[in-house]
Amino acid sequence: MLRVENALTQWIDPQAPAGLGEAMRYAVLDGGKRLRPLLVLAAREAVAGDQTDSALDEAALRAACAVELIHAYSLVHDDMPCMDNDVLRRGKPTVHVQFGEAQALLAGDALQALAFEFLTPAHAGIADSVQAKLCRLLATSAGHAGMAGGQAIDLASVGVKLNEDQLRHMHSLKTGALLQASVMMGAACGAASEQALSGLQRYGQALGLAFQVVDDILDVVADSATLGKTAGKDAANDKPTYVSLLGLDAAKTYAHQLLDQALAGLDASGLTHTHALHALAQRVVIRNT
Amino acid sequence: MLRVENALTQWIDPQAPAGLGEAMRYAVLDGGKRLRPLLVLAAREAVAGDQTDSALDEAALRAACAVELIHAYSLVHDDMPCMDNDVLRRGKPTVHVQFGEAQALLAGDALQALAFEFLTPAHAGIADSVQAKLCRLLATSAGHAGMAGGQAIDLASVGVKLNEDQLRHMHSLKTGALLQASVMMGAACGAASEQALSGLQRYGQALGLAFQVVDDILDVVADSATLGKTAGKDAANDKPTYVSLLGLDAAKTYAHQLLDQALAGLDASGLTHTHALHALAQRVVIRNT
Repeated sequence: MLRVENALTQWIDPQAPAGLGEAMRYAVLDGGKRLRPLLVLAAREAVAGDQTDSALDEAALRAACAVELIHAYSLVHDDMPCMDNDVLRRGKPTVHVQFGEAQALLAGDALQALAFEFLTPAHAGIADSVQAKLCRLLATSAGHAGMAGGQAIDLASVGVKLNEDQLRHMHSLKTGALLQASVMMGAACGAASEQALSGLQRYGQALGLAFQVVDDILDVVADSATLGKTAGKDAANDKPTYVSLLGLDAAKTYAHQLLDQALAGLDASGLTHTHALHALAQRVVIRNT
Repeated sequence: MLRVENALTQWIDPQAPAGLGEAMRYAVLDGGKRLRPLLVLAAREAVAGDQTDSALDEAALRAACAVELIHAYSLVHDDMPCMDNDVLRRGKPTVHVQFGEAQALLAGDALQALAFEFLTPAHAGIADSVQAKLCRLLATSAGHAGMAGGQAIDLASVGVKLNEDQLRHMHSLKTGALLQASVMMGAACGAASEQALSGLQRYGQALGLAFQVVDDILDVVADSATLGKTAGKDAANDKPTYVSLLGLDAAKTYAHQLLDQALAGLDASGLTHTHALHALAQRVVIRNT
């Protein structure tokens, strides 16, 4: 992960005008589990196998940074007063608390644009086909049919009784789409067979859902200091969760079933260099933050 | 322009979840001068000359829609209470007034993502190199070194006395970058020589600046009903403008000098099919909304 941290540190311009660079860096650096970048790099490793290709490695590094920028921007906007109105994130004051709402809004906007800038370097030797495919995957997963759409459903669901299908649909967009895109973007940095892509797709789908189920569990069982963000806020905000829907024990069982499904997807991919993807799936389900 | 309106109407999904599609469509459809799309199509026309190519026409149409989405999202976010707190835009209530702040924030975010989705269709026959270049141009012009960066400077400039160089720098980012990118994206939908690109660059630079000078003039001389947005708000917000800096008459003279510079850029491009670009430059300077 040092490569990703170094690249983010180097590529988010501290000189961006009027404090914007500072706010962007604050939103991204020194924090977060970096799950999405890790998924990109692990999927790249899986499809690369024993073959080395420095341009595709660079593409994967850029994709890893880009998904993290999208994730970071979504947190900045999500924390704003008109959304979740949260003051604590990754153990620090949220961006709007630190820099003001207007700067937070702009920093989020600029981080989204920067993600696509990362994916389309003019002189890195990355094939145009890879650049275009990475942009396509990221745009689709971030937009109305992905993350932003899921957030809209989430907004509209406060105080509403969702059933399990509706909850799953919301999360498959809100968090699942970008997690799955991270896997598929890593896979796009290499020549993957249809079988491999289909297995990775199953892996990404199950993992995305498992992530959310475990998030809902942690929101109930962990404290704010461990999480680095406000715990118990789903219940406080009257938001539907897997725990409120299934109960705590059934939610835990479900998370482990999803882990099994993710690993079955890896098996079905026919890929052999899947150690990192395997370990990440375990880590998503067995974690305490 | 009918093609752009039709494409926007068709491509912004009204089914996007939980009212998000409705807010996105409200932000984009039925309004605006569509200057940026017109610049894309006019630049495509200039570089295409007598050659027809349906894939490149499609690329230009997508680019035209994409720049308008970026422009529209920036207006949605710019109008929000934490930024300009404006209630009127294109003669209608602003998006956050109509749909609430949270939905406005999300709609803006989703519009930015959708712009990059428009540029990277999987099955439209558009060369990967064109898709990648369009994404690169758009991302750079929208982000911290372009529009978002200019907005950050603008934010930091309220009540501050900027000199002409500083004001020009702010506007070259805030509005100039996307206008210039519109021209260069149109040019990317064709095979333009270095000479042509350099002439178009000069055209775009001068036009972008002229646009802002005229905007500042209109903010003083026009009324809200004609503008379709709140007039006189720069002075009310104590924002520096070309009029406050140069005076009204000198600002008008400057706008016409910039028009001459833009047209000189066209002449220098060596391109012949520049009627539309020529007419657009005239329209930018001689307008009343």
